[in-house]
This record gives sequence, structure tokens and C-alpha cells, in this order.
Amino acid sequence: MTYELHYWPGLQGRGEFVRLALETAGADYVDIARGQDGLERMTDVFDDPAQPHPPFAPPVLKDGDLLIGQTAAILLYLGPRLGLAPDSEGDRLWTHQIQLTIADLVTEAHDTHHPVATGLYYEDQMAEAARRAADFRANRLPKFLDWFERILTRNPTSGGGPWLVGDRTTYADLSLFQALEGLSYAFPKAMARLLPDRPRLQRLHAAVLTLPRLRAYIDRGPRIPFNQQDILRRYPELDD
Amino acid sequence: MTYELHYWPGLQGRGEFVRLALETAGADYVDIARGQDGLERMTDVFDDPAQPHPPFAPPVLKDGDLLIGQTAAILLYLGPRLGLAPDSEGDRLWTHQIQLTIADLVTEAHDTHHPVATGLYYEDQMAEAARRAADFRANRLPKFLDWFERILTRNPTSGGGPWLVGDRTTYADLSLFQALEGLSYAFPKAMARLLPDRPRLQRLHAAVLTLPRLRAYIDRGPRIPFNQQDILRRYPELDD
Repeated sequence: MTYELHYWPGLQGRGEFVRLALETAGADYVDIARGQDGLERMTDVFDDPAQPHPPFAPPVLKDGDLLIGQTAAILLYLGPRLGLAPDSEGDRLWTHQIQLTIADLVTEAHDTHHPVATGLYYEDQMAEAARRAADFRANRLPKFLDWFERILTRNPTSGGGPWLVGDRTTYADLSLFQALEGLSYAFPKAMARLLPDRPRLQRLHAAVLTLPRLRAYIDRGPRIPFNQQDILRRYPELDD
Repeated sequence: MTYELHYWPGLQGRGEFVRLALETAGADYVDIARGQDGLERMTDVFDDPAQPHPPFAPPVLKDGDLLIGQTAAILLYLGPRLGLAPDSEGDRLWTHQIQLTIADLVTEAHDTHHPVATGLYYEDQMAEAARRAADFRANRLPKFLDWFERILTRNPTSGGGPWLVGDRTTYADLSLFQALEGLSYAFPKAMARLLPDRPRLQRLHAAVLTLPRLRAYIDRGPRIPFNQQDILRRYPELDD
């Protein structure tokens, strides 16, 4: 069965968290919005009045008749099917809990450049963005990074390895890698200050880059570069 | 087994989404932070260095050795155990997806009064709050309410009933009820404008109030009234 991923074509965004799982597992999937009539086919998923479970927003995964929205729900579904989830219910819940916390971090990071309204331009909310970004850099970002460092340190079944849950790669590892990538794009100065004291985060980031299929995807594409339409954006004035 | 709920004692907050499920099912649980040495016992869950899966933030559910953070993950776990989740995997994912969208709405509603920093007082971000709340009332709130109305209308197995998924109450119904309660507390004028055109939302809200155990909990307590320390707060200037 070929999975369909429905997400905006011009950015990594939240779709990239799903893509990294599909790519790392070598899964058969189509990135609908990047193909022929892609945006129309994506829009159909949201606008089809016969769709009993219309999603609220992209990304959406389609697997046969099943349509799943919300990034963390998609990964909850894909994890076991792609060999990227642990075996026990407790560990699966823990992996999902980590994913939800990564999602919270990504939302807060996004809101640094759009603290008033996603429907307005950044230029219309620069003063508010400056205040929110200052708090994010000083308080929220270190709090999140500390938590990830802590749970990496405490993983009771890591076997000395670099992963968040147990001794195998899960989708949460890929998502944390992706969050770190986005944060380093958007806040290079803040991350250059924060990462050296957090060796487990660095180790996880490096370990993900050794996964052969993921490495090939990053080196050869079709990964889209980070850009100023993405969830995380580089505004130097927000990264002091 | 007695569940332990760990959440701040003085507000409904995100803990209330878990409480409503536990109360509606008549589950055996202890609201730790409201009991003897409650805040200390709650803090221990976060600070215990021997805890392999320390949560990021309250609410936290403890079931024996299992500790679960993130409201939606807690309800994903509790749903089937409390008889508040549908049977099939597809419907359970759909219920979870709805819950995650309710969580997004609650976060956006919270951010209307704290758009800059949760660590600052409202009084230190009133100008930003006014702008964010205006966008929330005009764009985001109607968009969310329309989506809930739409999925209530489309529920293919409702059997004519009022529920979001299938023909039985799920935790998502209780959570949507709770979100509507909070929004009507915080934005009475906006909600009085928006609800009349959305009959399915009104019907769901009324139907939840007929559930005997939930009704008793709301009438007799120990439900805490909404207040100005809660996630959703009533600032009349934000509700134009």
C-alpha cells in the first residue's frame, strides 16, 4: 500500500516530521502536493463534503480509506508500521508523549515570529515578535532543551546508545532531530550558546545523521531547504 | 487500581479534561495536589531523579508504575479503560485527532491573554493581548467552531445522536464540552454571537450535561469555578 502525504509543497513545515519517518523506513509514499495537480488534490481532502473525517489542517496521511490529521497522531499510527516505535504500550505512550512535547516546542517557536496572528505578515507584528522571541530564547527554549537532555540521560534501557526510548531509533528521535535542525536555522546564535552544555542532544542529532536512508534523503533530496515561509524562520533580530 | 491525577489545585485548567473523563466514568481516582501535602507530592513527580519518564508539565496521570503526561496522551490511555473510546483503531485515531485539535484551540485561546510570555503578568502584555484576541475572535475561534460543527454534522455512525464519534459518548465529547464552557466563560459576547449558528455544538453541550455522573460532579463539586488563574480568563476588553 502506498501512503499519501498531503502537505504544503514549498516548505518542510510539520509535514517534514512525517517525511523523515517515511524516508528513514524506506516506505512507499507519494508527496501529493508536490506532484501533478498536487495542490488541488490536497485541497480536495479538506473540501470533499463526502469525507466523514475531514482533517482540520495539513499534514494529513492517507492510507487506503483512512485519513489521519495531526502530526503526532500520524506518527502514532505510522510508528509501529514503519518499525519506528517501541514494543510495549508504556513505551509507546512515552514516545507519543515526547512527540507531543516536541509539537508544543515547535508551536512556541513558530509563535516567536507570529505572536499576534498567523494571517498577518511578520512585518505587521515585529514589535510583539521581538518581545515573544526574547522570552522564548531566555526561558522556554532552554526549558524544553533541558527536558530533552534530561530524558535522554535517564533513558533506563538505552544500553549506552543515543536514543530517546530504549535502544532503537523511534520516530521521536527523528522529530527531535528535525526540531533541532529548525531551531538551529531560526536561532543560530541562541542554539550555539545552548547546545554545547547539552551533549546528549548533540549526540542524538549526530546519530540520526548516520541513519543511511535519512542521510541519503538529506544529501540528495527531495528535502526542501528551510526558508522564510516555513514554521521556523530566520529573522536575525529575533536571535540576539 | 486507584488513578492519581497530578495537577495544579486552584484551577480547572488542562487537568479538567482528564477529570471530566474520570468523573463521567465513575473511576476511582485521587486528585493529588488537592489533598494532604498535595503540591509537594505533585512536585515530587517532576523532581524525582529516579523517575525514568519525568513529564514536562502537568497534568500527569499515575496508574501504578506508569506515569503519563500530555492531556491528549492521558485520554488516549484512559479512553478504552473508562469506556469512553470507540472500538476500532480508525475511530480511536479519529477521536484522538479531535482531542489534539481541541488542545490546539485551548492553547490559542490561552495565548489571547498571554501572547508574549506565560511568565509575565497579563498587565505586562495587554496591548499584545488586545491584538491577538481580536484575531482569535474574528478568525481562529470561528474556524475551530466551524470544524467541530462540520464533523458533528458528518458523523456517519451517529444514529441521529449528538456525539462526535459513533453513537456513544467519548472523551472527545467531554473535552469539547469543556472547551465550550471555558470559551463561554472567557468570551461570553463572542460566543453568544457564534453559538446560535452552530446547533450541533449546542446540542452536544446540552447532551453532555445530561450524563448523570458528570451532572452530579458539576452540580455538587468538587469542580472549581473558572477563575482568573485558569487557562481561559475573562478580560472584558478581550471580548468585544
